[in-house]
Amino acid sequence: MRATVLYGAGDVRIENVPDARLIEPTDALVAVSRACICGSDLWPYQLMKPGEPPRRMGHEAIGVVEAVGAEVRTLKVGDVVVMPFAFSDGACVFCQEGLHTSCIHGGFFGTVEVPGAQAEAVRVPLADGTLFVLPLGEDDALMASLLTLSDVMGTGHHAARAAKVGRGKTVAVIGDGAVGLCAVIAARRLGAEQIIMMGHHPDRIALAKEFGATDVVSERGEEAVERVRKLTGGFGVHSVLECVGTDQAMRTAISIPHYEAIPASEPAFYNNLTVGGGPAPVRAYMEELLPDVLEGRIEPGRVFDRVITFDQVPDGYRAMNAREAIKVMVKP
Amino acid sequence: MRATVLYGAGDVRIENVPDARLIEPTDALVAVSRACICGSDLWPYQLMKPGEPPRRMGHEAIGVVEAVGAEVRTLKVGDVVVMPFAFSDGACVFCQEGLHTSCIHGGFFGTVEVPGAQAEAVRVPLADGTLFVLPLGEDDALMASLLTLSDVMGTGHHAARAAKVGRGKTVAVIGDGAVGLCAVIAARRLGAEQIIMMGHHPDRIALAKEFGATDVVSERGEEAVERVRKLTGGFGVHSVLECVGTDQAMRTAISIPHYEAIPASEPAFYNNLTVGGGPAPVRAYMEELLPDVLEGRIEPGRVFDRVITFDQVPDGYRAMNAREAIKVMVKP
Repeated sequence: MRATVLYGAGDVRIENVPDARLIEPTDALVAVSRACICGSDLWPYQLMKPGEPPRRMGHEAIGVVEAVGAEVRTLKVGDVVVMPFAFSDGACVFCQEGLHTSCIHGGFFGTVEVPGAQAEAVRVPLADGTLFVLPLGEDDALMASLLTLSDVMGTGHHAARAAKVGRGKTVAVIGDGAVGLCAVIAARRLGAEQIIMMGHHPDRIALAKEFGATDVVSERGEEAVERVRKLTGGFGVHSVLECVGTDQAMRTAISIPHYEAIPASEPAFYNNLTVGGGPAPVRAYMEELLPDVLEGRIEPGRVFDRVITFDQVPDGYRAMNAREAIKVMVKP
Repeated sequence: MRATVLYGAGDVRIENVPDARLIEPTDALVAVSRACICGSDLWPYQLMKPGEPPRRMGHEAIGVVEAVGAEVRTLKVGDVVVMPFAFSDGACVFCQEGLHTSCIHGGFFGTVEVPGAQAEAVRVPLADGTLFVLPLGEDDALMASLLTLSDVMGTGHHAARAAKVGRGKTVAVIGDGAVGLCAVIAARRLGAEQIIMMGHHPDRIALAKEFGATDVVSERGEEAVERVRKLTGGFGVHSVLECVGTDQAMRTAISIPHYEAIPASEPAFYNNLTVGGGPAPVRAYMEELLPDVLEGRIEPGRVFDRVITFDQVPDGYRAMNAREAIKVMVKP
């Protein structure tokens, strides 16, 4: 089968690899009908060091179950499924608390150890706990939005949950990439009153406004912080959703929340700031988000502004890395 | 009147200073009937640099209102009041959200700007918003516990709230000082099932157990983290209450929460850890905690293991700094 392999910085290839197959009795084999390229795929694409082992990329997919292991109970061949970016047993103490990304038997797709989903097929460990069966045929018009439940929509939602976004709150979203755009959807969905998008790509900002952003700040660094304070009567926002993942973005994030009443205070402590978040337990969020996608109340699939075939995957990485595309969908 | 003045590291004195008096029409003048020495008073006591201006110490007190300014509406002469460590107007956007320590007109007692309460009397700015009137005479047996609502009990409660302690949760408390001991009370009160006290002073640990600690870990650093993991089936705790305030304590705190399923991960991010907290809005917590003190359900006043007169204040600082006393009460 064909699959995406990263060999080094800037060197991503489509190759013929041995067909994916069941290994453990709890596995499912999924034929990938849609995958995509993630902003986090660009980190190794930019930074992979010589000598690191090749990596089979991709951690977001929708597909059709082709085979299941002997111990799989809840899935059958032909099911259309969403694959979250982490696999999990759905049963351990962490999964029971909704923190599937800390599953004691779980792990992540598209790592050196677990082949990824930018491929014709993918082996899914702990299939019962991991895969989410969709009540739709695989060519439904909602598939783009459903695909975002693999990662970016769940991740934007996780940022909003971790930052306690709620009715009437003021929120700043740092970053106008796919996760930032989904965070705007999430903040609006949770009832935020003022949503300030911090970004500077005109096409992305236009989409953010359609998703519910009420204000836009295109400055950077300290100037951006000042603009947010002005937009909030000098008080800052209740929540900052840091959707970039760089030091600079985090520094901006912890500078925004509160008006600094006490001179020379250590801002994070004196402002009772909470810093939180981590890998989104997107599997846990699927039940919550799915009805809104199915009934058209949210349209996160609009973050996909390019659809490519397998042969075009290397160019897809290049386009996302060059910020020509917000998010690229792969249809094998 | 007599007041406590810090002149330099290790140099704290009782001095005659001009009587405290009303300045603003929103002030109240309070005759201090009980004050105390805080762990945070020991920071400048240990670290004050030559050339820093002298500082009138003390930010915790119970007293009797002696005079009120023309605009004070809710207080009258003779009221017995608790003074929280921060003053606040009780009306701004931050106070309305229960974050009185970020009050846009507020500030802290015992700073270079605002004279403190280890004195015969204290001027209280924004008195209506700041002071909490007690329904008891000033010699009631509950006064020690009520005095802790000025700071340490509210601060332990704030740690528990910030860390989302709740029914059935597992909690580690780092530090067996007055705040750590009050954090044990708070965790128990909020329904925690397992409360692990991390400290190594036998008398304080004994008190922690009476307050509800179910386990004790007396190791330090990585060994302490391992012991907590063992005590929690390898999984770590839901919440860590860092009640020391040093780098080492914070490092231990962020090492404890979760079993690390993913090798070589960045623990704080990959474990979805949240780091939060700050100065406790103890004024906001008084309504909640007072009934439990009045009805004897919590006894935070037991953290006071020494009562001194004014003349003994310098020795009180020395005793707390030497860990001879958990917390020292001052009765002028």
